[in-house]
Amino acid sequence: MGRDINVGIFGLGTVGCGVVKILQDNADVIRKRLGFGINIKKVFSHTSKCKNLLTNYTYTKDYKELFDERIDIVLELIGGIDVARRFVIEAIEHKKNIVSANKALLANYGVEIFSKAAKNGVKIGFEASVAGGVPIIKIITRDLMANNIKSIKAIVNGTCNYILSQMFETHESFETILNKAIKEGYAERDPSFDIDGIDSAQKMAILAAISFNAKIEEKDVYVEGIRDIDFIDIDFARQLGYRIKLLGIASMKNERLLVRVAPYFVEAENILAKVDGVYNAISVISDMTGQTTYVGKGAGSLPTASSVVADIIDIAKDFESGKVKDTLSKGVFEKTEFVDIDSLESHFYIRFSVIDSVGVLANIAYVLSKYDISIKSVVQTGKGLDVVPLLVLTHKAKESNIKKAILEIEQDHKSIIKNGTVLIRVLE
Amino acid sequence: MGRDINVGIFGLGTVGCGVVKILQDNADVIRKRLGFGINIKKVFSHTSKCKNLLTNYTYTKDYKELFDERIDIVLELIGGIDVARRFVIEAIEHKKNIVSANKALLANYGVEIFSKAAKNGVKIGFEASVAGGVPIIKIITRDLMANNIKSIKAIVNGTCNYILSQMFETHESFETILNKAIKEGYAERDPSFDIDGIDSAQKMAILAAISFNAKIEEKDVYVEGIRDIDFIDIDFARQLGYRIKLLGIASMKNERLLVRVAPYFVEAENILAKVDGVYNAISVISDMTGQTTYVGKGAGSLPTASSVVADIIDIAKDFESGKVKDTLSKGVFEKTEFVDIDSLESHFYIRFSVIDSVGVLANIAYVLSKYDISIKSVVQTGKGLDVVPLLVLTHKAKESNIKKAILEIEQDHKSIIKNGTVLIRVLE
Repeated sequence: MGRDINVGIFGLGTVGCGVVKILQDNADVIRKRLGFGINIKKVFSHTSKCKNLLTNYTYTKDYKELFDERIDIVLELIGGIDVARRFVIEAIEHKKNIVSANKALLANYGVEIFSKAAKNGVKIGFEASVAGGVPIIKIITRDLMANNIKSIKAIVNGTCNYILSQMFETHESFETILNKAIKEGYAERDPSFDIDGIDSAQKMAILAAISFNAKIEEKDVYVEGIRDIDFIDIDFARQLGYRIKLLGIASMKNERLLVRVAPYFVEAENILAKVDGVYNAISVISDMTGQTTYVGKGAGSLPTASSVVADIIDIAKDFESGKVKDTLSKGVFEKTEFVDIDSLESHFYIRFSVIDSVGVLANIAYVLSKYDISIKSVVQTGKGLDVVPLLVLTHKAKESNIKKAILEIEQDHKSIIKNGTVLIRVLE
Repeated sequence: MGRDINVGIFGLGTVGCGVVKILQDNADVIRKRLGFGINIKKVFSHTSKCKNLLTNYTYTKDYKELFDERIDIVLELIGGIDVARRFVIEAIEHKKNIVSANKALLANYGVEIFSKAAKNGVKIGFEASVAGGVPIIKIITRDLMANNIKSIKAIVNGTCNYILSQMFETHESFETILNKAIKEGYAERDPSFDIDGIDSAQKMAILAAISFNAKIEEKDVYVEGIRDIDFIDIDFARQLGYRIKLLGIASMKNERLLVRVAPYFVEAENILAKVDGVYNAISVISDMTGQTTYVGKGAGSLPTASSVVADIIDIAKDFESGKVKDTLSKGVFEKTEFVDIDSLESHFYIRFSVIDSVGVLANIAYVLSKYDISIKSVVQTGKGLDVVPLLVLTHKAKESNIKKAILEIEQDHKSIIKNGTVLIRVLE
């Protein structure tokens, strides 16, 4: 049995308070299973939603007290980038092991942080940075270690998945459901971080880095959000046996990596199409294990905190051997070449906004054919209205060609085809 | 960087050959990620499906050579109980760490094996014994360690899930689909081990033991199979918004454990209802993380072998610290009280076989009411035929009462109600 482990907490917000609750409520079961306990030694936090849970003496006004030699692991739970980054770097220099739930930090400075941690022989736990309570980081880095991962296909933003699921069920517009989500607390007052795909991009950068041992940052991720999705798109998809999901996809093509976040047509039979509401789902496709999928709530105080505590335990167990080891923390991410998304081929769904008049489809079909794009199915609804949607599903085509064709169609036929054409890829 | 790890393999069947393939095909990636390699030092096997993969000198006719001091970990991949048990016990006495894919062995002698391993300071890896490539053992014992698990609800037999999914899709009978499954290799020539729920019961005994730290064996699991399921049951379930799945459920009720395997009506919205075909899915409901679900192929050479290799790596990493540690291998399973399934309450689906005549429903309803069982909905199909099915869905009732009522109905109304009434529980 090892000795008790002492942790210091930097930031006592939603996740921090969850960690405090778990370490208190489940102290006995943790001690029993682990053979030792986990004590909260010091807490640095300006504000706190759970001050009552802790005795005052644990609070400090000087964050440097978290580097006290009696503290084994510091938890960076403040979020954001600048302050968190300075703190983590300083903590590493003080030879502190770190557990962080900060996806923004790791997606942008992961390479720096992991290599610095490796140099200083400390470990970084970051299970909580992706998909809340779903232990996807450890599954990829440890359980699937004997596999070559081919691709990751994931729903990593519960807000977007909730909005798309609700639109599908209620037939309401994007705006209506978004406002509902904000009221119900499933979306932030400023939802752009979620609905524009930024949150997903940060998580995918982290998943891609560990899956392909790649040097990748948030800026390397191609991103589209779900603002332009209309119920008409969702309904057309349904008629063809698809669901629309905001997916993060990381895959290799000829030794080169492509990580993108965008709405996709997903076959109804695909497990990712069946995961609705605020749930996250990560499918890992690997050479030996095939496809395995991991589903759970992607956010929330306690699920996320549960992952933080799992990281603490993971690091703490190593203290028994007096030595911290972690293949990941060797911090050797390889320089990575990226594929341009324009070079990919897939089926596409295109929603044109057209003036309902003779010859519109002929013009569109003509331009598409010029770019080797053949039409699989087409539907025009709302006959008679001023501007009506024209929905096209294409056979396999090159993305660069699709984009050129749409541009030409919008430019050469302004009188009958309006701008704001919507393009959605079909998942292979 | 640690030194290379040497393994000995006992039994070179489907799983064993998968292990050989992974250790050979992915040797480089394993060495790169781990910092050391994994070598196959000795193999004991009467028959082999992949002798060509190994040089002859690795084979031995004397299994005791697997206890050679140069061998760090022995893999018990022979399956079955008696020989495997003697081998594992002997290997432990020789202070060998063990990786086993043998669910039958662990479900029946796990307590003995784990406590013996603990006494001898060796580790038992058994990820491959449940759900093939899905790392559910490590997820429960490590990632969810800070949680109190409330219940496990799982599809752990791909054959049964394939048969039930196919019946749902094709409207064919159980026998037709079973024969199809046997032809396609999704079921054994003697399918009873799968379709009677025995395979699921063994897996659930293992999952329950680690989830509740319980002393439980296969014999403690209540088991029903899927032989009696007819398409009419599946269709009636569908009309009411349910799917029929063979589930393994482990749950606590007032400090007492109940582990059962049986077909269930599962709400179509439940993720378990959406997992079709040969896939396995394990939902873990815990106090902090809530419900997380893990989905993947439950069998197959490479997925299962991938879990074996993950266990080898898990044990091997500990050699760096010259010491094997594992909370599970402390082998302290607590004496466990069990709940009788008759004491549970739930909604029930009952299919009576009745002679189509006036008063049948009256008689059934009367007896049910005597036992405080109220009917939620009832359907009688196939009018005019000699014997027709009468389908009943009840409100919440005590299982013991349901069974008494069915017995009385079958005995007191032999002239109009035939034996062979089918009872299926509705998942809460």
